[in-house]
Amino acid sequence: MKTLSILGSTGSIGTQALEIAREHPNEFRIVGLSCHSNIELLKKQIVEFKPEAVAVFDEEKADHLTDELKADIPVYRGMDGLLKIAQLSDADTIVNALVGSIGVLPTVKAIEAGKNIALANKETLVAAGEIVMDKARKHSVKLMPIDSEHSAIFQCLNANAADGGNKMSYGKAVDDVESVTLTCSGGPFRNFKSIKDFESIKPADALKHPTWNMGAKITIDSATLMNKGFEVIEAHWLYGRDYEKIKVVVHPQSIIHSFVEFKDKSVLAQVGFPDMRIPIQYALSYPKRLANTASKPFNPVTAKELTFSEVNNELFPCLGFAYEAGKIGGTMPCAMNAANEVAVQLFLDGKIGFLGIAEKIKKTMDVLKVVKNPELDELLELDNDIKNDGFQVL
Amino acid sequence: MKTLSILGSTGSIGTQALEIAREHPNEFRIVGLSCHSNIELLKKQIVEFKPEAVAVFDEEKADHLTDELKADIPVYRGMDGLLKIAQLSDADTIVNALVGSIGVLPTVKAIEAGKNIALANKETLVAAGEIVMDKARKHSVKLMPIDSEHSAIFQCLNANAADGGNKMSYGKAVDDVESVTLTCSGGPFRNFKSIKDFESIKPADALKHPTWNMGAKITIDSATLMNKGFEVIEAHWLYGRDYEKIKVVVHPQSIIHSFVEFKDKSVLAQVGFPDMRIPIQYALSYPKRLANTASKPFNPVTAKELTFSEVNNELFPCLGFAYEAGKIGGTMPCAMNAANEVAVQLFLDGKIGFLGIAEKIKKTMDVLKVVKNPELDELLELDNDIKNDGFQVL
Repeated sequence: MKTLSILGSTGSIGTQALEIAREHPNEFRIVGLSCHSNIELLKKQIVEFKPEAVAVFDEEKADHLTDELKADIPVYRGMDGLLKIAQLSDADTIVNALVGSIGVLPTVKAIEAGKNIALANKETLVAAGEIVMDKARKHSVKLMPIDSEHSAIFQCLNANAADGGNKMSYGKAVDDVESVTLTCSGGPFRNFKSIKDFESIKPADALKHPTWNMGAKITIDSATLMNKGFEVIEAHWLYGRDYEKIKVVVHPQSIIHSFVEFKDKSVLAQVGFPDMRIPIQYALSYPKRLANTASKPFNPVTAKELTFSEVNNELFPCLGFAYEAGKIGGTMPCAMNAANEVAVQLFLDGKIGFLGIAEKIKKTMDVLKVVKNPELDELLELDNDIKNDGFQVL
Repeated sequence: MKTLSILGSTGSIGTQALEIAREHPNEFRIVGLSCHSNIELLKKQIVEFKPEAVAVFDEEKADHLTDELKADIPVYRGMDGLLKIAQLSDADTIVNALVGSIGVLPTVKAIEAGKNIALANKETLVAAGEIVMDKARKHSVKLMPIDSEHSAIFQCLNANAADGGNKMSYGKAVDDVESVTLTCSGGPFRNFKSIKDFESIKPADALKHPTWNMGAKITIDSATLMNKGFEVIEAHWLYGRDYEKIKVVVHPQSIIHSFVEFKDKSVLAQVGFPDMRIPIQYALSYPKRLANTASKPFNPVTAKELTFSEVNNELFPCLGFAYEAGKIGGTMPCAMNAANEVAVQLFLDGKIGFLGIAEKIKKTMDVLKVVKNPELDELLELDNDIKNDGFQVL
């Protein structure tokens, strides 16, 4: 039996993780839950799963919930609350389904407390990949990716565990890996032919993802391909690959979730209808596989034709920014991520256009004085600084 | 360093196995070679690879070669010669690239001598799967499939070795397997719409395989889909799956070489341009992977659209015969195989039409009195009997 704390339990990933726990009561016990502000749903989750403690990031909502629950269980508040849930002594595995760089510190604290991490929060590895992987090795914790693409690679490597060695690696097969290829739906604008086509995009257009049903931030990131850029940086840290050996291919049907090429030119892929249930469950059940009656079985005959094409880097510059930031390293990926986070919110708020997202990121990267080998505090401070427009470009 | 004996060294699989040995002289030493009758090529192979002994199945050709080589190395003759090469004391791995049921006995004798088997000969498991797998477990030898489809499954399971347990199984993952799906190019006649279209097929038409370049027998088997039927029976024995859990899907591009569905509905696949080099090399290098500069790297962007469809069982009855024979078991698969072998030769010799192949197989299966749990001798006798038209249907 695994004991889980779920950070972000009211979101898309969090609610699916709880469905899995519901269906496998002998495999999982929920000991901690946290949400941003959706306390109505959190209350239902508390009644059903009976966690030992919960946290609400929004402090006013946290106080409401405290009043309502009348101290049956502790209700923690704000970032301190998240960190408490991330370090609950009874939890052996933390599901980090937070959105944004807010997810970095809870991951780090959970690793320091010896917890295994089922990681959906992309910004953790984008902003602080080196620090996080160093700590994961030092504390011998397992890092199980929830992203469909990284789960695909994880499964193709028949992942075993962090090896405690020089690089975080999954299974002996990692030494045999030549390259990984992340597939990418291309997002809702993949058929756009000219930069002009992007000028009139409204938030509602960008929130219509063709194949995956996800939260707002990640859906916009998927429309700009920044999401794929994040995954490139994550792949670098998770699988110890150089950026030259991490490829991206547009695959609009989202059936093949990623490819791993081995040194003998054999290629493995993980395949299925788009369904986050499968990678979430594998991250939770790893190294076991559990029955899954909720997902539709894959049938290649009912899948559409599978097609693949190159990314148009001119129309989707964010992917290139991520490669560039990843190769530069140091504080650059953290700055890029913070700028993106602010820019996406500005776009969702109608304050900038779709093309403004890439512009803001580029300006931020242009003015950043990169610090090599930053400490975690420096990264968090930089993140905060950019979000408060310390660079005056956002 | 592995020491290899190659049965069928002058054929398509055998020559590619030797190319791999040539490129990896620190990994492989050739200790035995055998061919049917192509002694000109065998002589070149002897000069280059310096085996300890060779065999020529055609006894007259064997005598020619003996005269020419002037007793530098032993030249064995006929089936006894094959068996000698299959059991050479210095060989740790036998590559069985023989065509037809002639491959059964060398596999069995090699297993009894404790050799690992890289198996391309389909008829071994079709005709005598239960006996062969029992012996493989008993002698703790590894069985590495060379077929692209079975190599795909083997790789998706991150195959380990025969487990010595109740069923031959590859890696712990086998318990998590829900089903396997073999892909099938559909052969040159996959677009035929009516049984009438098959009436005028000439051997030359059937020998034009759309995606794979192989020997004549297996190319005809691919055109009738009997080859896929053989693979279904092989999958049953190699991976311990019930026939209901072994599926076939037509995939004309031959890019996805097979699928494995796990119990959590995750699906893995092995992928690549059609190229037997990759599965042959993996069977030889297993459990390692070795560099492979000969094969073209897979690039999904340059692959055609990937499509999948159901097999038309009315137009391709041989696939159904194989399922039926496999489920009946006992002597039935051996009889089906022998009838197919004779019928394919009759077709290649212009003595029967394409549709006659399925007719002959069906008649043979109709008249067979099935014996359950046959001994190997009974199977070999039945095979011989059918080939000599003991049933008077061929």
